[in-house]
Amino acid sequence: MKGSKVELVTIGDELLLGFTVNSNAAYISRELGKIGLEMVRHTTVSDKASEIRAAVHEALTRTGAVITTGGLGPTSDDLTKPAIAELFGRRMVFDQAVFDGIAKRWASLFPSRPFPSTNRGQAEIPEGATILVNRHGSAPGILLEDADGRFVAMLPGVPREMRGMLGEELLKILKRGAADRVVLSKTIRTTGIGESALAEVLGTDPLGDVRVDAPVSLAFLPSAYGADLRLTVRGASRSAAERSLDAAALKLREHIAPYVYAEDDTDLAAAVLDLCRARRATLAVAESCTGGMLGQRLTSVAGSSDVFFGGVIAYQNEIKRGLLDVRTTTLETHGAVSVEVAAEMASGVRRRLGTTAAVAITGIAGPGGGTPEKPVGFVCIALDLDAGQTSKAFRMIGDREEIRIRSTQAALDMLRRALQPV
Amino acid sequence: MKGSKVELVTIGDELLLGFTVNSNAAYISRELGKIGLEMVRHTTVSDKASEIRAAVHEALTRTGAVITTGGLGPTSDDLTKPAIAELFGRRMVFDQAVFDGIAKRWASLFPSRPFPSTNRGQAEIPEGATILVNRHGSAPGILLEDADGRFVAMLPGVPREMRGMLGEELLKILKRGAADRVVLSKTIRTTGIGESALAEVLGTDPLGDVRVDAPVSLAFLPSAYGADLRLTVRGASRSAAERSLDAAALKLREHIAPYVYAEDDTDLAAAVLDLCRARRATLAVAESCTGGMLGQRLTSVAGSSDVFFGGVIAYQNEIKRGLLDVRTTTLETHGAVSVEVAAEMASGVRRRLGTTAAVAITGIAGPGGGTPEKPVGFVCIALDLDAGQTSKAFRMIGDREEIRIRSTQAALDMLRRALQPV
Repeated sequence: MKGSKVELVTIGDELLLGFTVNSNAAYISRELGKIGLEMVRHTTVSDKASEIRAAVHEALTRTGAVITTGGLGPTSDDLTKPAIAELFGRRMVFDQAVFDGIAKRWASLFPSRPFPSTNRGQAEIPEGATILVNRHGSAPGILLEDADGRFVAMLPGVPREMRGMLGEELLKILKRGAADRVVLSKTIRTTGIGESALAEVLGTDPLGDVRVDAPVSLAFLPSAYGADLRLTVRGASRSAAERSLDAAALKLREHIAPYVYAEDDTDLAAAVLDLCRARRATLAVAESCTGGMLGQRLTSVAGSSDVFFGGVIAYQNEIKRGLLDVRTTTLETHGAVSVEVAAEMASGVRRRLGTTAAVAITGIAGPGGGTPEKPVGFVCIALDLDAGQTSKAFRMIGDREEIRIRSTQAALDMLRRALQPV
Repeated sequence: MKGSKVELVTIGDELLLGFTVNSNAAYISRELGKIGLEMVRHTTVSDKASEIRAAVHEALTRTGAVITTGGLGPTSDDLTKPAIAELFGRRMVFDQAVFDGIAKRWASLFPSRPFPSTNRGQAEIPEGATILVNRHGSAPGILLEDADGRFVAMLPGVPREMRGMLGEELLKILKRGAADRVVLSKTIRTTGIGESALAEVLGTDPLGDVRVDAPVSLAFLPSAYGADLRLTVRGASRSAAERSLDAAALKLREHIAPYVYAEDDTDLAAAVLDLCRARRATLAVAESCTGGMLGQRLTSVAGSSDVFFGGVIAYQNEIKRGLLDVRTTTLETHGAVSVEVAAEMASGVRRRLGTTAAVAITGIAGPGGGTPEKPVGFVCIALDLDAGQTSKAFRMIGDREEIRIRSTQAALDMLRRALQPV
């Protein structure tokens, strides 16, 4: 390839009907950025040959470098290869090696079934094309290049196959031609503070006085987990980009230290497990409205078992009494959703499981069950630690799922702050 | 608008950098399909005015009907409105009513902070535009139309704001002009059978002899939850589409009845809760490797508390013994991941929680912990019901998260089959 700009054409009726979210586009864009290539446009078209040809032709005209996904399977609506071969003035030719590979794969997957003739079309390849091997499926990828350096790389649409072929085949080829200019980013993850309040704390130009080698841009990404701050450097050398990101991240963290729990993709559950590990704490959970979500988040971290012992899902009051020793009088006096019950759930699960730390959640996730005093989103969370008990009432916003996510996040954040006072 | 074809232009550097997955594109496409409009192309461009103008111009030339998302916020890189106003030859004018609305919203959210001057730009509107009210954020949407019926509707990029404005404002306007031709789909959800085996059972033309008023297409959508079969009818009247989908769904279900658990978006957890409710069964769970995920799935269904009492997350052997009465000899003889331990976990949690049904999961989710006899993905699941005990060993494929999802799905499917023998 000649330049550093690439366009993506994703092919599939499913995408235009809205039945499939185009996660391939984001993935490919990120991977290209890492080797200094810039994605300048995504286009999605249907499985029609005329639409594919038109979109790829326009993209080629603009950048000369195009990646496509989809339309490589054995079924009759897969027309990508001939449509694009036509743009390059190439014939389709039968490739015996590709055919043998597909037939072999079939035989190993379905030893008792004859090889279907429809699969033969998958071995039809544009003349002079480079084959991109598919180790995760049957349809091979295709790379077509001409003397002017124009290229189209055709990848499968199935994400697992696309990811494999991109990493194992295409990126290696593209890297050879790519300059040492990268797009890098770093994310500072915060929770317990709203996006507006965070913007207020950071002021209008939080990175103004940071000395960096390359300009760093800042974006706010709010979600039910909290507000993430994404720092991005584009078009610098890898070392300048890394230095600039580190300096900018350090500066940002200075402003908002109490709210920062991790960088990049690290979940708060993983950060809390690390804090527990460092303090030799062991952890148990008692969950009512979150129904297991907190345990699920903690155990989605590989290796969590040295810290996390387990917990009790006490969805009904009977279970709060029977398995967590919450007293009937507490339930009757304060109600199942109260800081008092949360506190007894935490101490109960800690005692029953023999851990050094415990956290409990009880709340009203909705859509039903709210009252004027305790509306939907009213959630009580309690910690029980060697250092003592803390409990707190929250008013979470959002739908049932958001309220449950915010509740687990608030519980983990209370733990984080207790284990690492700020 | 004149025709029924629409294009979408999504705007944002975040999308091209791959930091944000374009879920808006799928959502908008589905919603348009429901009122008979056909999405024919998605284009994503950066925040540059020249790119926005070019992409919208091309889309207008092809279809005359364009929706954009993104680029309406108060910051300086939001250039969508003036770029598109230019295409229609319109000036930008200050709209006092829009300004007052934004200022009022600000005052209610931040009573103590002065209204920032940067927000004033949000009240600059192309002359003659229709304002689309934003009830979920500050940036108003814009609808520009000309005498030839060409239109561009500009929506915010924040999904919550976009969804609100689309449903409450834009779809109502578009519906007036739309024909009675719809795109409808129905999904048959299966689990416990692989995609290839399902294809084998269905044969090459499973809908061949169904009498339908409109042609129905079939797509396979495999995931860790099982294989979904999506039936789609395009371009028919609503009643013909509905009749055809119903007939096709009935036919498909005949072929694969034992594997079908629900239609459309219904989770298997919701289907199992309904079966329990119909049989007046109450349910408890005991989870080791899934760490709460099964409880989380059951309680993510609103109103689950009449059936689901709760459970025990027994991540460590100590907890299996202490809270579930798993015998030390069983643990020592068969190991923590065994059908024997799963069975004792199920009967233990059922007895402790006093339910009529219980399900238990113990397994090796990886990436560590596998052995030649019990590799990563080896999972044992047991049921304890009035009708007796069942336990089963599985070999799940995928990474840690997939193994955990497949485990909860297999557990729910065992319950489904036990409650509704097939």
